[in-house]
Parts: sequence; structure tokens; C-alpha cells
Amino acid sequence: MSALFSITAPDDKLKDFLWAFIQGVELAGKFGKLLNPQLALRGWHTTGMIGTLAAAAAVGVYKKVTVKQMCSLLSLAATQTSGLEIQAGSDGKPFNAGMAARDAVSAYVLVENGFKANEDPFSNTRGWFKTIAGIDFSAQEMCKLWLHPAEISQPGLWFKQHPFCSAAMSGYDAAKILYQRGIRTKDCQTVNVHFPSGGDHALRYRLPMTGKEGKFSIEYIIWQVFRSGDVSDELFECPKVSKNFVKWQPCVSHKNDLETSDSAARPTKLTVKLKSGNFESVQVSFPEGSPKCPLSRKKLLEQLHLQVMVSGPEWINFCSKFTNPKWMVSELKQQLGK
Amino acid sequence: MSALFSITAPDDKLKDFLWAFIQGVELAGKFGKLLNPQLALRGWHTTGMIGTLAAAAAVGVYKKVTVKQMCSLLSLAATQTSGLEIQAGSDGKPFNAGMAARDAVSAYVLVENGFKANEDPFSNTRGWFKTIAGIDFSAQEMCKLWLHPAEISQPGLWFKQHPFCSAAMSGYDAAKILYQRGIRTKDCQTVNVHFPSGGDHALRYRLPMTGKEGKFSIEYIIWQVFRSGDVSDELFECPKVSKNFVKWQPCVSHKNDLETSDSAARPTKLTVKLKSGNFESVQVSFPEGSPKCPLSRKKLLEQLHLQVMVSGPEWINFCSKFTNPKWMVSELKQQLGK
Repeated sequence: MSALFSITAPDDKLKDFLWAFIQGVELAGKFGKLLNPQLALRGWHTTGMIGTLAAAAAVGVYKKVTVKQMCSLLSLAATQTSGLEIQAGSDGKPFNAGMAARDAVSAYVLVENGFKANEDPFSNTRGWFKTIAGIDFSAQEMCKLWLHPAEISQPGLWFKQHPFCSAAMSGYDAAKILYQRGIRTKDCQTVNVHFPSGGDHALRYRLPMTGKEGKFSIEYIIWQVFRSGDVSDELFECPKVSKNFVKWQPCVSHKNDLETSDSAARPTKLTVKLKSGNFESVQVSFPEGSPKCPLSRKKLLEQLHLQVMVSGPEWINFCSKFTNPKWMVSELKQQLGK
Repeated sequence: MSALFSITAPDDKLKDFLWAFIQGVELAGKFGKLLNPQLALRGWHTTGMIGTLAAAAAVGVYKKVTVKQMCSLLSLAATQTSGLEIQAGSDGKPFNAGMAARDAVSAYVLVENGFKANEDPFSNTRGWFKTIAGIDFSAQEMCKLWLHPAEISQPGLWFKQHPFCSAAMSGYDAAKILYQRGIRTKDCQTVNVHFPSGGDHALRYRLPMTGKEGKFSIEYIIWQVFRSGDVSDELFECPKVSKNFVKWQPCVSHKNDLETSDSAARPTKLTVKLKSGNFESVQVSFPEGSPKCPLSRKKLLEQLHLQVMVSGPEWINFCSKFTNPKWMVSELKQQLGK
């Protein structure tokens, strides 16, 4: 979306912007199905890899480039895809995402200026899929499935309520349920967090030292919830985690013993052994914000309002623009820039 | 080198510039030994991949960053390494190289401004080597070999005399020898070009359509030499190859039947069957410009003069600066910018 905003011309319509976004999501979803989870398990950051191509495709659709230009655009994007998953927890992770947008925009600017690149970037002779993952790609198969159904409606988008890794969303919901049942940090003897095999690979910080690392730590998230009922977004930005957390953290263990047959499910189960000797256990498979348990329209708008950061009357004005596809993107940008 | 020039401050010394360059070459050579030829055979463009890290290392040494900063700098470079080999023959190939410099400079600018990234980018738990090539990396082993011997002196650098792929250099020399023996395009019935296994993977255009593609075509290079005794650099920039070449090209075949036990050798053998029924054959293993057959100092200076593009008196002035390590890099830059 930042790539699309950055190349918006004064007369670009919101309708075209949203259509381009849908096409970018389509590419990301379809390519992701082909490549993940192997790509991520190998160490690549999917956003930096697939995101570059998704952003480039969206940009090409938005700016209505020719088919020949689209080939060069995707090719120049493909040759720039990069991003390591180890950056999770450092400034490098948002950088990977920003760099995907930067590289898509660079590719577009070059193609607009007559740059030509290899026009078959997904060829099975050392093309992108072959090089990054060793797999074959069939454009024909992809075309058959393109927008049938559209990825943006099925499975649909995930929405985060807090700035932590989406792999922790089910565990977060489970922790909130346990808090409702009265469980507090001081009551815990052990906390077992159960995932399917590989389900916690992105949650790589067992004992995070900074708030940023804590975004990728189920321990840090559960601790916050058991302490006060919810997470505080500021705690993911603090330079050093609390000593109380460091003291509490050893009671948590991961287990990779959950089975799941539903590919849309992201199950996490918490089993707490209380100091009293009792056990409490909750499993969540479709967390709030996931396509199967979407946020309410009200909550979505609240999230958007938080992001947009405008006052009451301007917010109403913004909403009316955002839901009127005849509006110009440049007008929205102006509003956002205030 | 372009990365180093781009971040040169007014008081940076040529001596520091050259020392940084040596360290960058060191990283490129040492990492290349660990990763190639597999990395290139898989489809990656080594310059875009390893070059980004080499440029970042050179920049860090040049700007005397702290050890902690160097870790973040290499980490931000590692997370940006990319580049597909299929771009050979299109604008995408020089772009991969330019992008390596761009990404190294971006990483440096961010680190200078306090950006922090994962400080163990070469970790064997999904670090760079593991992710891109599935191999382990030992920093300790690397340290033992660092500058012992220095890659810049052993094996040393390759210098190109013409802007075609270095994989064609032995075949080019062999063709010139055959031309000296009187062989011309019109005399050839068949031309067999023999390589070791994989030795021609970069020479991917059997029948190039443009001069740029011709940079990666042993056929196009041999044809030029058999036609007029040498290649013309302009012919690698023309939008369409000559019809005469297209007519002649079918007489050339590749064979991957050479064996080599010397890792420094890049053997290519040409066997020409003449229309007269006679055979002529030449093998070159260490082409002119390779470390084992270096260009003379005179030729090197001629090449530099061609690149620098200054007139006689300025050239002498330039040479005296370039060989005086006390000079400022900024003065050289000024000279080059004229």
C-alpha cells in the first residue's frame, strides 16, 4: 500500500488504487501457497521475498503498464527480492517490508524510463521459483486460479489488533480467556504452550531482552496478559523488558504436539499448572482477526482510526472519502499528511 | 568501488579507500569459495548476492565503524542480498551490480543513523549462508584464513579487456589464435566449443538477438573474431545482431567434455572443422587478464585510461594522484567528474 501511495498521481482514482491492491494481495496469496511454509522455515522473510513481487504487480496494475512492461517490472522486482527472517525482533524486520516497497517502486521507475529486464522471470530454467525454492512454476495453472476465488475474500485478510507476530494471535486469545477465568502470573507453576509442528518458528525469542524482540515471544505476550488482562503496545517498544518478566519466564515451555487437519487453523493451546496443583487449559484455533473470526466492522474502524491519527470531524470526513471509490487518492494522501 | 566513492567525505584518504577495497575483495573471494559454483548454478547472480556484503564490508572498513555497527551493517546488507542470473543479457544484469552498491550504502546510512539489525547474520540457525545455500559457516575458520593469503594477490583479480562475460575469455583467446592461423567465418564447416562441465552456464545465449545478449554468447564472440580478428565493443550494444551472424551461428556446438584438475584454470577448447575437410584446434586454460596470465601494466593503464576518459595532460595528472596514497579520494572524484 505504501508503494501505491508513493506513486500516486494527482488524478489517480481510489477505485483503481483498491483494484491494484486486490491484485497485489492475489499474487501474495497465490505465491505464498506455492512457497510457504518451506520458504519461511528455510530462513526467508516472506514479506521481503513475495511482498516485493506483490507490490510490483500492484504498482503495474495501478499504473496500467503494458504487458511487456509488466514482464520487465516483475522481473526487476524478482531480481531484488530478499529479506532474512532472523531480522524479526530488530529494526531489520520492518526494514525488510519497507525495502519490498522501495524495490517495487525502483523497478517501476526504471521500467517507466525504458529499462528492460529478462521477460520470463518465472521460467523453470533458473527463474525465480527455481532459484529461491527449487520448485517449478506453471503460469497456466496460476491463471486458472487467479481471482477464482480471490485471495482477499477467501481465505481473506488477517488483521492484527496489536503489533506482535501473527503466530502469537491464538496464544494471546487463549491467555485472555485464562485471565478471565482468574489466572494471574503469580498463580502459575508451569505454562505449556502447545503448537503444531513448526507453528512457533516465528516466535523465536523465548527470553526477549527488548520490547521489539518481545513481539516475537509468546512468553512475553502471555506474561503481559496474565499480569493485567491485555498487552500494552508501548511494552513492545521499550528498550528493556521488565525484571518481573525475566523472573517469571522460566515457567513457560513450548510443545509442538498439536495436530491440525484444517489448513486455515492456527491452533495454540495453553495448559497452566497452578501453584494450587490444579490445571487450566484452553485451545484457540481461529484467533480474533483471522479470516474465520474476523474483527467486527466497528473494531476495524477503530484500528483504522488509530492508524490515521486524525481528530473527530476529520475522521468522519476521512471515512466518507475512503468509502467513496470516486475520490482521488491524492485527496486521501493530503488528509493523511495533515 | 562505486559504493566507496559514493560515501567519500572531503578528507578521506586514498590509502584508506584502497585498504577498504582490499577488504571487500577479501570477503567476496572468501565467501565466493564457500558458495560457488553452486550458488550461480542454482540461478543466483553472485555479484548481487555476495557483492552486497563485500561492498558493505568495504564501506564499514572505509568509514571505520565500530564492531557493533559492523554487525548491523553486514546484517542489513545480508537481508538485502539478491539478484537473479537470468538477467544476464538484459539491463537487469548491470542493475544487479548497481543494486549491490545501493543496498550496501543504504545499510551504512541506516546504521550511521542508529538503526540496529540482528547482530549474528551468519548464524547457523537460519542465518544468511543457511538460508541462501543451506550450508554452515564458521567465522573462526574464516578469521584464520582472512588475508592469509589475501584474495587480491592470490588468486588475484581478473581484468576484462572487453565487456563480455568472463566465462568467454578463454574461448576468445583461442579464437584469436585460430584467426592468426588464417581461420575465417567463411571457412568453417563446424565449430565445437569444449568446456568443463558447467563451464558455459553463464554463456546462456546460443543465438543472441541483441548485442547485450551477445555478451553472454561464445558464438557471437567467436563469430566477431573469425570475421575481423577481434571483437568490437560497439557490437555488444547494438539493438539487433547482424544477419550474417544469425546465418553463421548454426555451425557452432557446445561440448562439456573437458576435464580440469587446476581450480584456477578456465579451459576452453575450440575445434574447427574447415570446409576443406581439415581440422584446427586450440585450447586456452588461463586467458589473458586472468590471474595466471595477467595483463601487462601498460595494458592495464590503457584500460584505465579508456574508463577515465580524460585527455593527455589530465591523464598524467590523474595517474600521479592514483599512485600516491596520500592523496584525497575527493580530489580524484573531482578529476573523474570533469
